[in-house]
Amino acid sequence: MGWHYAALEERLARIGHIEGALAVLHWDTAVCMPAGASAARGEQIATLKRLAHDLLTHDETGELIAGAEAEADLDPWQRANVREAHRRFRRARALEPALVEALARAANSCEMSWREARRRSDFALLRPELETLLGLVREAATRIGGALGLSPYDALLDEYQPDLRDSLIAPLFEELARALPPLLEAALTRNRPAVRPSGPFPEPAQKAFLEQLMARLGFDFARGRLDESAHPFCGGTAADIRVTTRWRRDDLASALMAVLHETGHALYGAGLPRRWFGQPVGEARGIVVHESQSLLLEMQVCRSPAFLRFLARALATAFGPDPAFAASNLEALWHRVERGLIRVDADEVSYPLHVILRWRLEKALLAGSLAVADLPAAWNEGMRELLGVVPPDDARGCLQDIHWPSGAFGYFPCYTLGALLAAQLFRAARTALPELDRALERGEIGDLLAWLRERVHARASLLSFAELVCEASGGPLGVEPFLDHLRTRYGAH
Amino acid sequence: MGWHYAALEERLARIGHIEGALAVLHWDTAVCMPAGASAARGEQIATLKRLAHDLLTHDETGELIAGAEAEADLDPWQRANVREAHRRFRRARALEPALVEALARAANSCEMSWREARRRSDFALLRPELETLLGLVREAATRIGGALGLSPYDALLDEYQPDLRDSLIAPLFEELARALPPLLEAALTRNRPAVRPSGPFPEPAQKAFLEQLMARLGFDFARGRLDESAHPFCGGTAADIRVTTRWRRDDLASALMAVLHETGHALYGAGLPRRWFGQPVGEARGIVVHESQSLLLEMQVCRSPAFLRFLARALATAFGPDPAFAASNLEALWHRVERGLIRVDADEVSYPLHVILRWRLEKALLAGSLAVADLPAAWNEGMRELLGVVPPDDARGCLQDIHWPSGAFGYFPCYTLGALLAAQLFRAARTALPELDRALERGEIGDLLAWLRERVHARASLLSFAELVCEASGGPLGVEPFLDHLRTRYGAH
Repeated sequence: MGWHYAALEERLARIGHIEGALAVLHWDTAVCMPAGASAARGEQIATLKRLAHDLLTHDETGELIAGAEAEADLDPWQRANVREAHRRFRRARALEPALVEALARAANSCEMSWREARRRSDFALLRPELETLLGLVREAATRIGGALGLSPYDALLDEYQPDLRDSLIAPLFEELARALPPLLEAALTRNRPAVRPSGPFPEPAQKAFLEQLMARLGFDFARGRLDESAHPFCGGTAADIRVTTRWRRDDLASALMAVLHETGHALYGAGLPRRWFGQPVGEARGIVVHESQSLLLEMQVCRSPAFLRFLARALATAFGPDPAFAASNLEALWHRVERGLIRVDADEVSYPLHVILRWRLEKALLAGSLAVADLPAAWNEGMRELLGVVPPDDARGCLQDIHWPSGAFGYFPCYTLGALLAAQLFRAARTALPELDRALERGEIGDLLAWLRERVHARASLLSFAELVCEASGGPLGVEPFLDHLRTRYGAH
Repeated sequence: MGWHYAALEERLARIGHIEGALAVLHWDTAVCMPAGASAARGEQIATLKRLAHDLLTHDETGELIAGAEAEADLDPWQRANVREAHRRFRRARALEPALVEALARAANSCEMSWREARRRSDFALLRPELETLLGLVREAATRIGGALGLSPYDALLDEYQPDLRDSLIAPLFEELARALPPLLEAALTRNRPAVRPSGPFPEPAQKAFLEQLMARLGFDFARGRLDESAHPFCGGTAADIRVTTRWRRDDLASALMAVLHETGHALYGAGLPRRWFGQPVGEARGIVVHESQSLLLEMQVCRSPAFLRFLARALATAFGPDPAFAASNLEALWHRVERGLIRVDADEVSYPLHVILRWRLEKALLAGSLAVADLPAAWNEGMRELLGVVPPDDARGCLQDIHWPSGAFGYFPCYTLGALLAAQLFRAARTALPELDRALERGEIGDLLAWLRERVHARASLLSFAELVCEASGGPLGVEPFLDHLRTRYGAH
């Protein structure tokens, strides 16, 4: 290892520490910050982002990368670290600071308009801001694509999931678009009546129960915490993982399902290799892989009939007996499907249809074949085609998600690709761990977690996305394990 | 206003935003951070400090300061801002980065040894580390003193309270050292029997009561919060003030007094001028002035007989009737004096004697006339002379405070100078506000706060320390208002 590599790693560590500080600021903003501090917080965050960006895009960084690439004696992790650093460097250098700033400002302003537009269900309030933002996103995507040799949409996808290309997505999504509507149709006929646990469930009791459950699933409270925020998320750093949820006294499932999902993210973060903490190669492999870990825990593990039997006992122990806690009722409750309007409330059968709609529309918006003004009509038409329902207003239609108004085009596909990967990994895990179902029935996921740590978490960003998927799950990403899972769980053979 | 000044202000704002981010990290470390994250947090903090230091000490900063100093059309605030920036620049440039790093490392290591040494009451565990640290502090003080034309001890004082000199402290402290022992002696004979409120006082009830009390005193929860930490403090930024305390179920006074003290700090921070938020001239005028604001609220206002009558009613309303809540009992309880061993537990009569001991010893340590090895004996001898008691062990003697092991020499005098200034300001306020006592009896401090805002808070660092003291309180800092206050309250005429 020569001095170029060593100096590069030191510089990347500094960037990593700034990003770690930013993670604390983001968490604090969502969980602790008093409202009056938001302008000052915005300045703090912008300043740290700028410092990290300046360090990354500095000419010296480019020289260190070039020097390190020429060093012959790097081990595979070091070489991958240089590769990931180079990827970030190229992306960051592709945009002039003025464009980065214009994007941040437009996204901030568009997001504020969106809040108002959604509240009033008035798309006209969002339209001009979204047009401006889309223009800037298109310009940035074109620049980055030019620098990386990618189409604009692939340049956007690549930000969230390195190496993800639309040529991978398209056949998978078109297959899902064909297979899921009849599957949903059949599953709808299998919905069973169910009662919701009656509660009330005071926040301290819910929190104590969920902290115990998280610990059982492998979450280490010496390196993380559980708090409340308006929208559940998993933030922080690998050394300090911050899970949040929201408490509803009358609805136990709200916090429970959010915590199970976020704990899946958290376990991935905690399983990243300590040696590479704060270095690009030590980061999670991308949003698709991250989402696969949260959905694997939430959907594959925790909603499995075996785990629901454990959960039924645990709930009764924590909150006292309630007929609604019967395993068969929990299954009826949490295996329901519906033709819904809202993505975040969707069951796992219909969820990909919501995503496919957004994927089609955001590509058309980016390409210019769909005008922003025509988005509401196109949305409603897509909902009719894919889900058979039409939103009565735009608040429950094209205004429901924050992603586009915050500038995140190319993010939606990650959710469904994550669901596919979760099913594929879980199938491989069940083959490798024949005792898994019995362990889940006892609420024990230790063996599964060890398997995931070795196959996925400990590899961080050592491999490319495609390599990781193949090496961890045994083959390239496909729809079959996911569809098979749905057919089994929702009885729609 | 020329471009030098404008560019300087922009650069200072960036430094201010980094410091704001650091304030959040410090608060999070004390209040939220899981134990396992401390190494990573240390790196985040060190990285941000280094970035702020690099920005401040950059040659360009010096050029901007010099250019701004030559600009003719600055207003008084801008000119003071340049002056304060220059002060920071000179101090920061006086130390090479290697010395700064060595100091930080030595202080960190010494602080860890101190925790163990105090736990075991074994000074020998601390001695070598403290010798190393003292050597580095001496070197830094000599360098800074050389750059600023100050003695080493003045160079240290100047860090915590700009413009504070030992030539100001010495006559005040020698006068206190003569006046206080007989005053304490007399006050001891006036201690009255008192009963402590019996409790228990559950944390949520204490917190609700204190939040209500803080709001009544003028604390704005849209720009701040109250949380729990091992040691009470007031942190955050002027836009986001974070007060902490600790809860003791059996001792209401512990959290109450801590919160009143920290709220005094908080109100100062909240009263700093918004226009100058994040600029050097917009900062508090130094630790002495800060401490004057906390002690004014805690000691002058909230322990006054008038306010205790309000507090007696408020406590009975919040926690139910208890004979211990009688105003006369609260007065007997919270106006007790004693010959104690521990500074942080000391009453306001004996507290300055604890400080004077430390002031004498830290000057001798710095000058080399007292060896670290001889500190325990010198401490015990000083306690005998000033307070008439001798610690039975070093844990309750020279190992009790974190200040020296963390590298903070020159800080202790600020506590007592703050108490003097508090008494002097409160005397001036009572003259200006003849209705003050009646307002305090109703728990209303609005007029007092408005007076403090105008006289002290809104001036931030516009004036020098000496100018601010004179303009706000009507004369230079002296001991008479403080001694007069003690004689009145403790009946020792």
